[in-house]
Amino acid sequence: MSYTLSQLAEMLGARLVGQGDGVIERVAPIEEAAPGSISFVSSAKFARYLQDCKAGAVIISEDLLELATVPALVVANPRADYARIVNLLYAQPKAEAGIHPSAVVAPSARVSADASIGANVVIEANACIEAGAVIGPGCVIGKDSVIGSNTLLHANVTVYYGCTLGENCIIHSASVIGADGFGFELDQGEWLKILQVGGVKIGNNVEIGACSTVDRGAVRDTIIEEGVKLDNHIQIGHNARIGAHTLMSNGVGVAGSTVIGKHCLIGGMTGIRDNIEIADNVTITGMSLVSKSLTKAGSYSSNTPIDDTRTWRKNSARFRQLDELAKRIRQLEKQLENNN
Amino acid sequence: MSYTLSQLAEMLGARLVGQGDGVIERVAPIEEAAPGSISFVSSAKFARYLQDCKAGAVIISEDLLELATVPALVVANPRADYARIVNLLYAQPKAEAGIHPSAVVAPSARVSADASIGANVVIEANACIEAGAVIGPGCVIGKDSVIGSNTLLHANVTVYYGCTLGENCIIHSASVIGADGFGFELDQGEWLKILQVGGVKIGNNVEIGACSTVDRGAVRDTIIEEGVKLDNHIQIGHNARIGAHTLMSNGVGVAGSTVIGKHCLIGGMTGIRDNIEIADNVTITGMSLVSKSLTKAGSYSSNTPIDDTRTWRKNSARFRQLDELAKRIRQLEKQLENNN
Amino acid sequence: MSYTLSQLAEMLGARLVGQGDGVIERVAPIEEAAPGSISFVSSAKFARYLQDCKAGAVIISEDLLELATVPALVVANPRADYARIVNLLYAQPKAEAGIHPSAVVAPSARVSADASIGANVVIEANACIEAGAVIGPGCVIGKDSVIGSNTLLHANVTVYYGCTLGENCIIHSASVIGADGFGFELDQGEWLKILQVGGVKIGNNVEIGACSTVDRGAVRDTIIEEGVKLDNHIQIGHNARIGAHTLMSNGVGVAGSTVIGKHCLIGGMTGIRDNIEIADNVTITGMSLVSKSLTKAGSYSSNTPIDDTRTWRKNSARFRQLDELAKRIRQLEKQLENNN
Repeated sequence: MSYTLSQLAEMLGARLVGQGDGVIERVAPIEEAAPGSISFVSSAKFARYLQDCKAGAVIISEDLLELATVPALVVANPRADYARIVNLLYAQPKAEAGIHPSAVVAPSARVSADASIGANVVIEANACIEAGAVIGPGCVIGKDSVIGSNTLLHANVTVYYGCTLGENCIIHSASVIGADGFGFELDQGEWLKILQVGGVKIGNNVEIGACSTVDRGAVRDTIIEEGVKLDNHIQIGHNARIGAHTLMSNGVGVAGSTVIGKHCLIGGMTGIRDNIEIADNVTITGMSLVSKSLTKAGSYSSNTPIDDTRTWRKNSARFRQLDELAKRIRQLEKQLENNN
Repeated sequence: MSYTLSQLAEMLGARLVGQGDGVIERVAPIEEAAPGSISFVSSAKFARYLQDCKAGAVIISEDLLELATVPALVVANPRADYARIVNLLYAQPKAEAGIHPSAVVAPSARVSADASIGANVVIEANACIEAGAVIGPGCVIGKDSVIGSNTLLHANVTVYYGCTLGENCIIHSASVIGADGFGFELDQGEWLKILQVGGVKIGNNVEIGACSTVDRGAVRDTIIEEGVKLDNHIQIGHNARIGAHTLMSNGVGVAGSTVIGKHCLIGGMTGIRDNIEIADNVTITGMSLVSKSLTKAGSYSSNTPIDDTRTWRKNSARFRQLDELAKRIRQLEKQLENNN
Repeated sequence: MSYTLSQLAEMLGARLVGQGDGVIERVAPIEEAAPGSISFVSSAKFARYLQDCKAGAVIISEDLLELATVPALVVANPRADYARIVNLLYAQPKAEAGIHPSAVVAPSARVSADASIGANVVIEANACIEAGAVIGPGCVIGKDSVIGSNTLLHANVTVYYGCTLGENCIIHSASVIGADGFGFELDQGEWLKILQVGGVKIGNNVEIGACSTVDRGAVRDTIIEEGVKLDNHIQIGHNARIGAHTLMSNGVGVAGSTVIGKHCLIGGMTGIRDNIEIADNVTITGMSLVSKSLTKAGSYSSNTPIDDTRTWRKNSARFRQLDELAKRIRQLEKQLENNN
């Protein structure tokens, strides 16, 4: 697809500064952009590239406009309008509606005539695939599960029985929705499995990355509210609830029954223990260990800074003496008080 | 399924206190339970919910019995008997025996007439699927591998060649058993692959979560002993041995050739280095880094506590000075000794 | 397969010490080796096993030769030549060329007559599978993607559209190449998806473990250079570039746009933040948090040492006072200076 800059300005409601008849065919990073491509500058940090910019146009905020040397679309949030332009220029043709002949669909499943069911898909009894949904090759949709309208499952996703996905969701490959929560009870030296009879409920506009897992609830449902965005390798434990528009980077683990607020930002590879609560608007930096509830909005961290291994070894050994060192400091303070 | 309370009491060998003719159809958390449902109370922490409890019955231990306001099943371990009741009430009908017409089964594979082979399953040469085993849609079972009787593989599990799974195991979707261990040798600046020719041996009653991996051995087998329960996103490296009835939460990584004892509890996202030994009955709290053998039973931890990011930054910067700070304390102590 | 020791010596260019007519059929760890098997000793640590060694032969370096009690192949790097012998003795027959009748191959896809396409594979429009490539059962290869010659995809791998894999690569099961990078922009309280229109480029001789993910680029490609070896559960974020012959152990996460040098060794479960650079020949120990660029070769670490939970709790609590403790030490030093 391609558009003139004037067309893009009109579609976005952006102010056009400069010539509007240039044709825009693709996006590019500002430092590599050539004619025919459009870039964006969202911070002063990248403004230095504007001087020699060869892009067909830039998307820019009012305050940086004076630095622009090529036609510009002036908007409030350049990155958001950049995203809109990428979506316009690179829109993929939607998968064709219909059921691939190699798919295995239970007679009792309801598949919208407007849905697309890929090769080797398996859809079990009473499952429901709504209008416009796209089920990629090799996906398995369990009994009684519902895939909402216009939701896209990439290849090789597994949805267990009794799970509900909302509308306009995207689930990436090798992810698993509704596997059993991790529930066992020690009984005479052996672990007795506690059947997990809750389900999973995923709201509208949720995206889940590749190789991620959302476990089914023990009795209640595990809940992902609308607009949540989960990266790859995420684990959501049984009975957890993730608040609307919360975003988690790669490898975050949320243990069972934990409730996370809305609009949180959870850094990659953070571990969040079970049965705690995290308030709305909490930010957690990467690789933190969250071992208690965080009841106030704000930014939180744990872990130690990287260092060369030799220095780190010395400091790390001292960590094991920290309590003793603190007591020795107290002792010194007392001695000095007595001396004086 | 539904049972009267008297029937449940008899099946569990529990003491019934109160009316036994109420019908129990489902389980529910104590604070949400309605007539027809049964709940359990396993600790004083939840006993406050007993007062207004609307459940049809509760499973309870002797010491909390006096607080019960509805009919009760008195047992030694309420959570274990709760698990048994869930299994009774929610038992899923077992997948029908037989081979789905879309499955691709090598002529030399031996599939029990009593096993269930799902749609699009691939079973390679000489593999053996024993009586009562259920192989979910999209699973691939490699050459010469054995799936023990009554073992359940959920959809899209991959078992490489030459792996043996015991009886009554459960493997969740997107997990991979028997991929190559990570073995390379630097040879003139490039990594030479060391073919991994060991297998994987998994005992009876093992459960492995979704998106988990158990690598095949380099020469010996990788071994998971009976009754082990692994959560999602677990990695077991080549030649490792995991002792019976050990339990690992989400995201634990066990590196190659490490031997872990029986009845250990490994907290989520803990990393365990290669070639070490962990004794029986070791507990490790979440996100620990286990960099040396743990030769005695007990509880172990590493990592730092979460804090607000501003405070954490200041403390974290001081971590890099710990050795120097310790030396300054020693210096102060010497000075004071000299002064006195 | 089996060879006489003389044959092996000739194939490897090794010096044979002792009888050469023994037949070698398999490899074994030195402490378990029986006649007919060959072992290697690469360090003095294992030399004690040489005394009672029952192997048919050992691969050994010159300096340990005098300890050998059985015929020996003397080489510069015993582990590398061990790897070569494993490859000779255990070479698997290559999958037969041809397309399994259950595979679904788009008419516009180009599949070499010499490639092997497994059961239930899906190959989408214009994809290209080169000579000698092996695509395991259940794999899905997206539109326009290229699988280089002699590359092996184990079962249930997913390759999205527009990705290129080099020659002689190995990708293990449940891994996902080319899923969307994690790119969103907050727009009026909701996350707007930024379509990820870059691809993935993987060089020759790359191995990627099971359940790993390499995300497609936002605009540029994500790049894995030749000879890189990634273990299981790895995440490579969008636009990242991993330098040639770098090796990452289980569970490493590399965030977006980060550039890692050549010949690095990244320990398991290390998290590497976005938009940083790591020099060539950097080693990072396991479970480190890399929050800044590492511009010099060398070894780096973070994290804290494991301890019994009781001791750890006390020390860990003191971590939250570190900055204050450091200030108190400074205060004591001042007081003492004033006193003297």
